[in-house]
Amino acid sequence: MRATIMYGAGDVRVETVPDPVLQQPTDAIVRVVRACVCGSDLHPYHNMPATPGGSPMGHEFVGVVEETGREVSTLKKGDFVIAPFAWSDGTCDFCREGLQTSCRHGGFWAGNGIGGGQAEAIRVPLADGTLVKAPVGEDSELMPSLLTLSDVFGTGYHAAVKGGVNQRTTVTVIGDGAVGLMAVLSAKRLGAERIILMGRHKTRTDLGLEFGATDVVAERGDEGIEKVRELTGGDGTHVVLEAVGHMPAYEQSLGVVRPGGVISRVGVPQYEEAPIGFGTLFGPNITLTGGPAPVRAYIEELMPDVLDGKIEPGKVFDHTVGLDDVAEGYRAMDFRESLKVLVRP
Amino acid sequence: MRATIMYGAGDVRVETVPDPVLQQPTDAIVRVVRACVCGSDLHPYHNMPATPGGSPMGHEFVGVVEETGREVSTLKKGDFVIAPFAWSDGTCDFCREGLQTSCRHGGFWAGNGIGGGQAEAIRVPLADGTLVKAPVGEDSELMPSLLTLSDVFGTGYHAAVKGGVNQRTTVTVIGDGAVGLMAVLSAKRLGAERIILMGRHKTRTDLGLEFGATDVVAERGDEGIEKVRELTGGDGTHVVLEAVGHMPAYEQSLGVVRPGGVISRVGVPQYEEAPIGFGTLFGPNITLTGGPAPVRAYIEELMPDVLDGKIEPGKVFDHTVGLDDVAEGYRAMDFRESLKVLVRP
Repeated sequence: MRATIMYGAGDVRVETVPDPVLQQPTDAIVRVVRACVCGSDLHPYHNMPATPGGSPMGHEFVGVVEETGREVSTLKKGDFVIAPFAWSDGTCDFCREGLQTSCRHGGFWAGNGIGGGQAEAIRVPLADGTLVKAPVGEDSELMPSLLTLSDVFGTGYHAAVKGGVNQRTTVTVIGDGAVGLMAVLSAKRLGAERIILMGRHKTRTDLGLEFGATDVVAERGDEGIEKVRELTGGDGTHVVLEAVGHMPAYEQSLGVVRPGGVISRVGVPQYEEAPIGFGTLFGPNITLTGGPAPVRAYIEELMPDVLDGKIEPGKVFDHTVGLDDVAEGYRAMDFRESLKVLVRP
Repeated sequence: MRATIMYGAGDVRVETVPDPVLQQPTDAIVRVVRACVCGSDLHPYHNMPATPGGSPMGHEFVGVVEETGREVSTLKKGDFVIAPFAWSDGTCDFCREGLQTSCRHGGFWAGNGIGGGQAEAIRVPLADGTLVKAPVGEDSELMPSLLTLSDVFGTGYHAAVKGGVNQRTTVTVIGDGAVGLMAVLSAKRLGAERIILMGRHKTRTDLGLEFGATDVVAERGDEGIEKVRELTGGDGTHVVLEAVGHMPAYEQSLGVVRPGGVISRVGVPQYEEAPIGFGTLFGPNITLTGGPAPVRAYIEELMPDVLDGKIEPGKVFDHTVGLDDVAEGYRAMDFRESLKVLVRP
């Protein structure tokens, strides 16, 4: 089959690799119907050292079950499934608590002998725990929106849930990438009446307004902080959803959060040390939370509104490529010509 | 009157200063019945640059109202009162939310023209919002326990509340100082069944066991982390209450917190930058919370059990000095000869 392999920064290739086969009785083989390129795929696209063996890519996909191991009991050939970006057993204490990203037997795609989603097919470990069936055919128009349940929508939702968003909280979302826009949609879903979106790409912030943002702040740095404070009577917002991951976004979070408030991060931090002392988090009793989203915990909750067409998170996809053109998809996202690229194997 | 003034590191003096007088119609004058020395008073005792004008000291006291301004409506001469370590109006949005440390009109003792509690008397601003009446006479044996409501007990309780302690959470308390021991008592009060106290002073950890700790870990650093992990099946605890404030205590918190768990800090951080990236907080979805405790929010809640004698937080006081000997109190706490020093003006 064909699969996407990254060999180093900027070096994305689609190659013929062996077809995936069942290895464990709990495995399933899934034919990928749609995959996509994640903002976090751009980190290795910028930084990956040249790697002769390459690394499979992609951790978001929906597809059709082709084959199941003998211990798989909830899935059968032909089922349409959504895959969260981490695989998990669904039975350990962490999974039962809804923290499938810390599953005692789970892991992540595209590593340790597991392929990536930007491919024609993939072996899914712990298939019963990992995959969620969706009652649609693979020709459904809902495909892009269902695919967002694999990562971006669940990630934005995790930010909002961990941030404690509700109808009494004001919210700032930092970042107008796909996750930031999903954080807006999620904050709206959880009842927030005031959602300030910080981003400077008009087509994206326009989509953010459609998803529920009430204000857009295009300014960055101190000017952006000042603007949010102006909009909130000088106080900042109860919750800040940080969907970028770079230090300036964290600094911006500190600048716009209200005393007693919460900064919820889902942008993968590209730093390790940061200010958290008396002058930043401690003095004003700010809570810092977030992390890799256990999207598996949210798929069943979010899917009905997608199936009903009540929400259309799939609008974040503004560009579609065939698998052979996936390198062009990376390039388009990197150059910000595309918000998020759908891959059709 | 006599009051404690610090002129620099190690230089604590008791001097005659002008008696406090009403300045605002919302003020009260309180005669101090008991005060104490706080672990956080030791920070300036170690680091304060020589200051010719000196700085008044003390932010924990109970006393008797001597005089009230004309707008004070809930207090009268002779009332016995507990003062939280921040004064606050009790009416602004932050106060109503229970974050009196961020009161829009409030502030802290021993600064900006407000005296300290280690004195014979003190002017209390915004007396209606700040002070809480207690139905006792100044000769009550409950005096030490009531005094803990002024800071240490409320601070330990804040740690536990922000940490989300309940009967389903396991807890590690870092630090066997007075606040750490109060954090143990608070975790017990909130239902925690497993409370691991990290501390190496046996008389203190013995008191911790009396307050509800189930395990004591005397080891520090990696060895201490390993010990806590052994006690918790390798996982660490759901909640860590950090009651020290130095970087090694933060590092220890990172080492003993379970994925998805909470580190709640009430030790005043003596650092600004610290690790919070993928390898520490983000990857395992750890929440970092805490800050200066709005103890005013907890006094009414915690007082009944103190009045009933159901709990005896005042046991943290193991040394009493008269006001003239307060410098000796600082020295004894600094040399760890005393856990916490009560001051009797």
